[in-house]
Formats: sequence, structure tokens, C-alpha cells
Amino acid sequence: MAVVVQKYGGSSVGNIEKIKKVAETVVKRKRAGDDLVIVVSAMGDTTDELIEMANQITDTPDKREMDALLSTGEMISCALLAIAIQSLGEEAISYTAYQIGIKTSGQYGKSLIYDIDNKKIKKSLNEGKIVIVAGFQGVNEEGDITTLGRGGSDTSAVAIAVKLKGSCEIYTDVDGIYSVDPRKYKNAKKLDEIDYEEMLELSSLGAQVMHSRSIELGQKYGIPIYVGLSNSDIKGTVIKEVANKMNMESKPITGLATSDDDVAITIRDIDNDINLLSDIFESVAKKRINIDMISQTAPMNNKVNISFTLPKADLKEALDIIEKFYSGKDKLFIDEDITKFSIVGIGMKTTSGVAARVFKVFKLNKIEVKMITTSEIRITCAIKQEDKQKAIELIATEFNL
Amino acid sequence: MAVVVQKYGGSSVGNIEKIKKVAETVVKRKRAGDDLVIVVSAMGDTTDELIEMANQITDTPDKREMDALLSTGEMISCALLAIAIQSLGEEAISYTAYQIGIKTSGQYGKSLIYDIDNKKIKKSLNEGKIVIVAGFQGVNEEGDITTLGRGGSDTSAVAIAVKLKGSCEIYTDVDGIYSVDPRKYKNAKKLDEIDYEEMLELSSLGAQVMHSRSIELGQKYGIPIYVGLSNSDIKGTVIKEVANKMNMESKPITGLATSDDDVAITIRDIDNDINLLSDIFESVAKKRINIDMISQTAPMNNKVNISFTLPKADLKEALDIIEKFYSGKDKLFIDEDITKFSIVGIGMKTTSGVAARVFKVFKLNKIEVKMITTSEIRITCAIKQEDKQKAIELIATEFNL
Repeated sequence: MAVVVQKYGGSSVGNIEKIKKVAETVVKRKRAGDDLVIVVSAMGDTTDELIEMANQITDTPDKREMDALLSTGEMISCALLAIAIQSLGEEAISYTAYQIGIKTSGQYGKSLIYDIDNKKIKKSLNEGKIVIVAGFQGVNEEGDITTLGRGGSDTSAVAIAVKLKGSCEIYTDVDGIYSVDPRKYKNAKKLDEIDYEEMLELSSLGAQVMHSRSIELGQKYGIPIYVGLSNSDIKGTVIKEVANKMNMESKPITGLATSDDDVAITIRDIDNDINLLSDIFESVAKKRINIDMISQTAPMNNKVNISFTLPKADLKEALDIIEKFYSGKDKLFIDEDITKFSIVGIGMKTTSGVAARVFKVFKLNKIEVKMITTSEIRITCAIKQEDKQKAIELIATEFNL
Repeated sequence: MAVVVQKYGGSSVGNIEKIKKVAETVVKRKRAGDDLVIVVSAMGDTTDELIEMANQITDTPDKREMDALLSTGEMISCALLAIAIQSLGEEAISYTAYQIGIKTSGQYGKSLIYDIDNKKIKKSLNEGKIVIVAGFQGVNEEGDITTLGRGGSDTSAVAIAVKLKGSCEIYTDVDGIYSVDPRKYKNAKKLDEIDYEEMLELSSLGAQVMHSRSIELGQKYGIPIYVGLSNSDIKGTVIKEVANKMNMESKPITGLATSDDDVAITIRDIDNDINLLSDIFESVAKKRINIDMISQTAPMNNKVNISFTLPKADLKEALDIIEKFYSGKDKLFIDEDITKFSIVGIGMKTTSGVAARVFKVFKLNKIEVKMITTSEIRITCAIKQEDKQKAIELIATEFNL
């Protein structure tokens, strides 16, 4: 019997009626013969409501306590789904991260799963039970509750699928992965499949469909991940190692993503010292703040300007860290008016001239490019926010997305 | 330095403003020099709201899952109180039952604490932290979350005080223990102190101020329990071993309690067989349903009628158990129109004629007594609900309560 790990997101379990609906879907699948582990997110806006309560007390709540607080949302939906499944006549049992030893390391709010003790899950599956697991949470070496970051339930699901050698299905409120976010570009095309690498780039670039870490795990252990609409027959998208890359390469770009969540920091006239630069980035990385799009000007009088982007949410913390690396407020320049505009495709590896096509389109249409970074399979530009919509439509048309 | 375990009930932490207020009180006390462990209940109506959600799915939710669900309420208030204390500049750390090994045995929803691993609490206290513990919850031998029953946070607090050899303070929305519930009798007198035994009788009889098991624990280990209003200087009541019993005995009755939460069951014409009767009560007791007020008629043709009361909430479950002990629906009689009316006092041990005085008052005022049970320090009568208020006023006046 195959073990299938399904994850239902917050919108799929947003209220009691929706939980009952998920229970029906799950019971039907169980009766079709699969062993099921169901990972659930917190109901609807629960997480935001809990954050709001903490923020009524202080703007800077302790991270350990925030994780303890936020982890309750998934425990609630987990127990309610178990009750809903039982009321339909199937056996079900809910587990928290403590109960099934979801072990994490790293920082509160951004933890990584490093192991899961699957004994209890296997025992319950062998007893014919549907196992319900609270997503998003784990327990670190000190026994503290830690969370995996927004969307972390995806990672909980994939990690369990890895551990049980099962398959993984992520159910959400979108019916699959699109070449461009359909809310931003109405002609966007849904993809039948997408390679792990492409999805990884897209989701780390602001296509909020999936938690990046979940795709990394899927890729590392070769677990295909289905992404689709909950309680529906509409066919979604499979994230997997795409076998016939040549086929894909006929189309250089698979997807496009934009993000307004970043800010660009420039530090002027700092010493051109490789140790100093690596110190800056290391200090910031230690706090698990993701720096992206680093660029540096050529040295002049042995001084350089460096620019980099990071999430707006981490700006305050980052500024506290980097303030010791420069002197004088006039040396620091913060640009909040940026959109990170990225195109992704494995086809880029072998198709030359993709960057040139992009920049030509931007130039012809007077879209200013503030920063550029590239990897083997993606090109990211920082552009003005006011140019975002125009850029999406131009590039989607240019590459038939 | 003394360790003080304080418990704040659901109404004391009913919203964010109240949680902040409790944090201020706690911080003031800490700065006065005490080591503090704070046990919290769920915020306001959280527990009822969680029950309501489960009841929207089914009337008979699984008890394991209900405990998993309800335990989240205390985790939320616990983390929020820690955040509120930290925002006032003191160190605080929250712990769930898992984290500090609150081990329970027995049934879901009615578990007993049998041990607490106090290492983490002691370590955190030694580090100068205020320790916040989620009340009401524990973990059983299977690793399942179990709850202690309504009011169970009192028991969590006393158990921790026992384990840490500290003192215990229960803060709630009443300013102490009264001879009669002041909502039922406006002239009721507040007691400065009350003996464990009296309080135990009163709280098991429907004076909902305290969880009975907490008083048993206090008595067993000699921990005095202060009960009073949160964030207030009004003097409350101390539950303790009252040294000078002779003094108390000058007043035969300390308190009066009534409860409408019970139902009387009568089974007619069952075999007068001591094994059968003990089987009935044992089967019911196994489910931890509290049977009270047992009475049996004299045998006739070797048949007897037995009557007993039990909580209305357990009626359905009890009927399922006892149905195999009689044949014919006409043999079963259920009386839902009862008030359990009890008077309690250590003084009864040495003062004769208390029962006679009670029954004389009832007789003169035409209050029908349906059933009677007595112990060394209490007398309980089942009366009609419509007579309750009159009975309270008559007896409170008769014994100057």
C-alpha cells in the first residue's frame, strides 16, 4: 500500500465547513486504498490573529515565545480534522511535533527539520488510522518549540514523505503552478510539470506558492511534489526532476516572478577589503537574513560602493548589524522602491542571448534596471515598482509564458 | 528565597489588557524578592469556543482529540503572558506540559497528575527567570496530551508548589471563599480561613471556586492555598489545616453549597444481590463518573430499588453502561429536577443535632427532601430545584452563614 502525505493549507481548513470537506476528501482517498498522513496548517487567519495579539503587547516579542504561540494554530486544526474524519467513520489520530519527534535546528521562526522519528506514524498507519500531523512546527535540541517560517507546513509534509518513502501532495487555494502569477498576468499558463530547480528559484523569488525548503528536500531525496487545488478534480502541477531537459530547453524560460518585499541597501566608500566584505555578509547571514543581489562597484582610491537587497521585514535587524561596518549616516543609502523581477528556466543553461532579449525589451520600453544578478537558470533585475506591471506583460509576451 | 506558585484563572487573563495587568502584578512581586512560577488558564472563553468548534462537527468528539484541542488554550495565554512580562523588563520563559514533564494517568479530560519533572523549572528559576506554565494539561504514558478537567489549572499550580516545596496562590475573579456563594445569597460571609476537608466537601459539592483535586493535593502535602482576587489588595481566604478545631467547632457549619448539575437515577426491582450492586457501581466508576447519594430501599421479594445521583454531563455514558443491569425501560426512572443541597462543617463531628435542625427547617417550610446522604462533616439533600433559593436563605439564617 502506498503512503501518501497530503498537506492542506490554511485556506483549505479556514473554517469548520472546510475542515469537514477536507475530511470527506481524505476519507474517500483512504477508502480507495492509500495509507494517508495529512499535514495541516493553521485555520485561515489564525496565525495572523496570534501575531496581532502579541503585537498588542509589544512590537518586538521574544522569538522563542512567538514560536510557542504560533505553533498552537496547527494543533487546533489538527485535532479538529481528526475529529471530522472520525465522525465519518474512519479512524484518525493527531500528532504534534513533540509527539512524533520532528527535530529542528537553527533559529526560532526559521528552523530547519533535521529528523523525524517515524515510529508512531508507522504504528498508527499499520493500525489502519489516518495520521494527522501539525505542520509548521518542530522541537529543537533544548526542547523548545520552533517554527519553520511562513509556509513551513509544506516542508513538514515533504520531510514526512521523505522519511516514509511516500509521495507528497500539497493542496492549496491555487490549482497549480503558473508561468506567471495569474493575479498579476491574466493570460498566464498553468504548467503540467516543473523542475525542482526552476520551482526553487521561483519560490525563493516571491512566487509564494511553496516553501522553498520543501522543494530542496523533494529534490534532494527525489520525492515528486504534486501541487493542486483541494477537494477538486482539476489537474495541478508536479514538481519533479524533469527527465527530458532537451524538450524543456526548446523554451528557455519556464516562469516569471516578482517581489516587492525587498529593499536595497547601498554602503558607499568602504575599504576595498575582501575580509571586511565577507565579515558584513557573514554577520548578516548568521541571523539567517537572506541577502540577495549583491553588487559592487570597481574600486577607486581603494574604496568601493556595495549594494545588496534583503527582505524589508529584516531591514531593522540588518541595519543594527551592519552599522559597525561604516561611519557616517551619509554613507548609507536605502532604496525601498524596488521590485525584484526574475525569470527562471533550465533552458537558459543552453540558450544564449536570453539576458540580451530581456534587456533589449526593458531598454526599448524605458524600464530602468537598478541592479542585476544572474545564476545558471535565472536572471533577476531590480526595477522601480511603478514599472512592474509593464515589465510582466512585456516579458510574458516576449517569451510566450 | 521563597518559591511562590501563582495561578491566574481564565477571567484574569481574559484579554490582552488583563494579561498586561497580570504581568505588572507578577513583575512587582518578583522585584519584591520572590521566585515565581505562574500557572495560567486559557483566556476567557477560549475553552468554550474550542468545544463549540468541535461540536459543530459532532456531538461526540473523540476524547483524546478533545484534550489535544483544548490544551492549546493554555499554551496561547502562557506564551502571551511570557511576552508581556518580558516587555516589562523581566526575564520569563513559558513551558508546556511536555516541556516540564507533567505526567498524568487516567482518562482523557479527567486525568490525575502523578509526577512533574522539575529540573527545567528549577534551572530557569536559578537563572532569574519568571517561569510560566500552561495549566490544565499533562502528558500520559502513551505520550498523549491529557487534560485535568474544568478548573484543572488549580491542580497544576498546587502540584508544582508541592514539587518545588513552595507556597501556592490561586487568583481568580472572586475575592475569597464564602460560607455561601454570594451570587446566591447576598449576606454571605467571607471566610479568613477554611480547613482542607471543609473546602474539599464544598468544592466537590458544586462550589465551583476550586478544583477538588488541588485541595486534596494541598492537604496531602501540607501546602496552604491562598485564594483571592487577582491584581488586588483585598484579603482572600487561606485553605489550610486549621490548628484550633475546637474554636471552629463552636460553629457547626462553615459553608453551604448547591448544585443543579446532577441527575438522579432510580432502578426498580433489581435483584438484591450485593455483587450485582457493586458491579453496577464499579462499571460506572471505571469511566470515572462520580456517583453520589446512593440510597437503596429495603428488599421486598428479594427485589430492591436503588437510586443514585451523577453529573448530568455523564448521564448518556452512564445509561449505556447500566442498561445491561436491568430489563425493561419501565424499570428505569430519571429525575432531572434535583438540586443537591449540602452543608459542610468540621464542627458537625462534635455537635449533635445538626441534621435534625436542618430537617426541622425543611419540614416547617414544606421543602421536600428526595434523597439524603451524610458524611462526618457534611449533610447533602436532594431537593426540588424550585425550592433551592428558599432553602439557601432559611439554612444560611438558621446557622448564621
